[in-house]
Amino acid sequence: MTPQNAYDELALRAREMATLASTQAVLEWDQQTYMPPGAAAFRAQQMSMLAGMVHDKFTDPKVGELIAIVEGSDLVKDPDSIIAANIRELRHNYDKETKLPKELVEEFNKTTVLAHNEWAAARKASDFKKFQPWLEKIVTLCRRKADAYGYTGEPYNALLDNYEPGASVEEIAVVFEKVRIELVSLLSKINNSKKKPDVSIVERPYDVERQKVFGEMVAAAMGYDFTHGRLDIAVHPMTIGIGPGDTRITTRYNPRRLNDALFGTIHEAGHALYDMALEREKYLGLATGDAASLGIHESQSRMWENMVGRSKAFWVYFFPQAKRIFRDSLDGVELDDFYKAVNNVAPSYIRVEADEVTYNLHIMLRFELERALMTGQLKPADIPGEWNSRFKKYFGIAVDHDANGCLQDVHWSAGLIGYFPTYSLGNLYAAQFFAKIKQEIPDLTARLEKGDLLTLREWLREKIHKQGLRYRAGRLCQKVTGQPLSHQPLIDYMKAKFGEIYGF
Amino acid sequence: MTPQNAYDELALRAREMATLASTQAVLEWDQQTYMPPGAAAFRAQQMSMLAGMVHDKFTDPKVGELIAIVEGSDLVKDPDSIIAANIRELRHNYDKETKLPKELVEEFNKTTVLAHNEWAAARKASDFKKFQPWLEKIVTLCRRKADAYGYTGEPYNALLDNYEPGASVEEIAVVFEKVRIELVSLLSKINNSKKKPDVSIVERPYDVERQKVFGEMVAAAMGYDFTHGRLDIAVHPMTIGIGPGDTRITTRYNPRRLNDALFGTIHEAGHALYDMALEREKYLGLATGDAASLGIHESQSRMWENMVGRSKAFWVYFFPQAKRIFRDSLDGVELDDFYKAVNNVAPSYIRVEADEVTYNLHIMLRFELERALMTGQLKPADIPGEWNSRFKKYFGIAVDHDANGCLQDVHWSAGLIGYFPTYSLGNLYAAQFFAKIKQEIPDLTARLEKGDLLTLREWLREKIHKQGLRYRAGRLCQKVTGQPLSHQPLIDYMKAKFGEIYGF
Repeated sequence: MTPQNAYDELALRAREMATLASTQAVLEWDQQTYMPPGAAAFRAQQMSMLAGMVHDKFTDPKVGELIAIVEGSDLVKDPDSIIAANIRELRHNYDKETKLPKELVEEFNKTTVLAHNEWAAARKASDFKKFQPWLEKIVTLCRRKADAYGYTGEPYNALLDNYEPGASVEEIAVVFEKVRIELVSLLSKINNSKKKPDVSIVERPYDVERQKVFGEMVAAAMGYDFTHGRLDIAVHPMTIGIGPGDTRITTRYNPRRLNDALFGTIHEAGHALYDMALEREKYLGLATGDAASLGIHESQSRMWENMVGRSKAFWVYFFPQAKRIFRDSLDGVELDDFYKAVNNVAPSYIRVEADEVTYNLHIMLRFELERALMTGQLKPADIPGEWNSRFKKYFGIAVDHDANGCLQDVHWSAGLIGYFPTYSLGNLYAAQFFAKIKQEIPDLTARLEKGDLLTLREWLREKIHKQGLRYRAGRLCQKVTGQPLSHQPLIDYMKAKFGEIYGF
Repeated sequence: MTPQNAYDELALRAREMATLASTQAVLEWDQQTYMPPGAAAFRAQQMSMLAGMVHDKFTDPKVGELIAIVEGSDLVKDPDSIIAANIRELRHNYDKETKLPKELVEEFNKTTVLAHNEWAAARKASDFKKFQPWLEKIVTLCRRKADAYGYTGEPYNALLDNYEPGASVEEIAVVFEKVRIELVSLLSKINNSKKKPDVSIVERPYDVERQKVFGEMVAAAMGYDFTHGRLDIAVHPMTIGIGPGDTRITTRYNPRRLNDALFGTIHEAGHALYDMALEREKYLGLATGDAASLGIHESQSRMWENMVGRSKAFWVYFFPQAKRIFRDSLDGVELDDFYKAVNNVAPSYIRVEADEVTYNLHIMLRFELERALMTGQLKPADIPGEWNSRFKKYFGIAVDHDANGCLQDVHWSAGLIGYFPTYSLGNLYAAQFFAKIKQEIPDLTARLEKGDLLTLREWLREKIHKQGLRYRAGRLCQKVTGQPLSHQPLIDYMKAKFGEIYGF
């Protein structure tokens, strides 16, 4: 078999696996939107069967042999070539999938299913002690996973790599630490400011049907293509990239608050633009047809949500339209007051409800605790104490009970240790990309003020989306911005924006 | 391997194949309801991949070996036992799936995809000549299929058996001929009657939202369980049994006609009650967890739609509710006039819009032509002439052009020769079951008048639904009614009902 034949065979197998995985995505979308509740038990059987089939196809030893044939050939001589990138990631994923003993995978799956229910009960009772034995099991299993994968540096790296390939805890900790220090100081200034936005502007009745119309208008203006997508209601706002030509988003409406669905829709449409611009049809199942990382994905949603959707320039164009649609709610409201209201900063317990400034502090806290759990420096039993003391230090307020503290997130019960950092990486990448964009599109603000969102969208498509995972996130950042990841663009952006709003 | 082990292994494989097929059903439902139009191309790839996987699993020679082991054992000694029934149908399906040469399957699929487009164009132009070469190809391919399957009697039997296992053209032709003769005579009396229902009652504005509410009320009263199902809008009204605990129905609303969605919903809910009562979880993928035949399935939908939903007793209970919901449209309308309006009989060209009496004549005509095409007595070129002369004879009106005649149905272009008879078999089985039910539940009319639909539903569940395909349709009919299939119950029912309405 020639190396080219081996590569073609791998591409065909990758396409088959991706097609199978795409049927899982349809089932997932259905489950989140329209599935009758009584169908849940059988849906779990369908999903687990499909997952097993994908796993079996991928861990077929023949896949390893084919990868090895291409690796030993001239096809990968240029490490930046498309074939080299695709083989690099196939090797990475094949090794990870085959390194875990079957017994560990099964125990992990069984434990997390049970742990999820125990976590839900513990959160309801706001009693960490009930969840503690399950967190202990999960930490142990995650350590075993890390050992099976292998790692350099800390065991956390092996887990982080599942979500952010090639990232290292040692590198991001340096950036995160700087972010945290700067944000704690910024938050303190905001807390002490006398100039408080009037949030009542966005916390009054907003007709749900009109919210939906406005959300779809904004998504369409961003370039979200409704002939290849849909916007539905779901408990969990999400983007589901089903496959080539099918990228759907969901949101949820609060009839008494404008922000939730509006910025949620912009956020998901930001993810969706990335997904829609990937060369999925051409490279189905291969790295060059896939997103670079969760962090890069989140950079797209966060940039659209915050740097665009919460900018003054955006509302210069859209606020008059919003006033015509939400006539009663926005009667007599001025653009400047509306802009400040959607940018209100207020420390709060719950991450998913956090504003742009405090959101990253929520992540820093979780990242630090996860990292210490994995090195063993922190015991699960010490989580509540450690959580609460750090929370007081970073946010300036004391956690009242565990449901508002260390029990709030689903992630640990699902075994997703290593996932949280990607949220803040998204904000960091977004700011660094956005600073570069402002250099390269000097009239961006004027364009946004005229409702031109597509110039930005084209830039993102060319520089980021179409690259797929040809380069890993750190390398992509370097190529796009000329710099490695830094805390500075995000902090500069935050200081300028919130200094202006809060008057310091 | 013991025969019991072989059976257990078959049951496991059947469950896996059915789970895979159930993911196709989710994709199918999504495609019919909410899928973005731009996703169509990839959806075809997903569907064909899943179909290929099911086919490969089923035609694995190991399946044949396992079936043979059980067949040669005491497990099937009692031919009416559950295991014997399941093995009987596995053998039947395995033989059929493996008998078709791969080359024939591929040519059949390729031809029908092209033929579908050619048919659509020919129908649009109302020009049979354009479709004729494709019908010739399809008839030839269907003959080759029949030869590959093997048959006794006429080649048509091999095709009919795909939809109505065990039925024979020779037997049903005798029944159909009697039906046709009686219906032509009945229709002539109706056409000559001076008493015409006032159909304008149901052909005026009916608010679509209220149609939906009323349709769901009726479906719920029938016992359709919305925690295990949904009612959505789709171009093609249908029931999709996704799997255990998930049976969805669709309908379409005409804002100026009550009948379409209302009787369509009752029809689909009738199918769904059958699907929901099957022992799917226990026998997933096996005959005893599956429906007996398309004809028996249609008997359930038709019984609910016509014998219940278009009965006077049903409307004694539901008409007052309908009047409260459709206040303006039904203002001043009397029960008796409404009952007659929903039972209006009027010969028309299009089968899918036909009333209860003429519907079967549409089927008889198609059945007779299909049968003659397969024996070779009729050439595709002669179809329009033959269609039109029979239509004139049966319906008393002349077909104006091919789009209203032999080009109206999608079936032949899809290669579905042998499918049509199952529609009339459904009506025949429905009438025969219903006559038996009236004996066994003597106060059924009084129950329907009080809105009790669940007594009927329980009878159907116990006598028919829960049997699955333990007995084939003919045998099931004999067991349930004590008689082989006969034209008499349907004709008796029609004569009594329409004689009363049209006054003869």
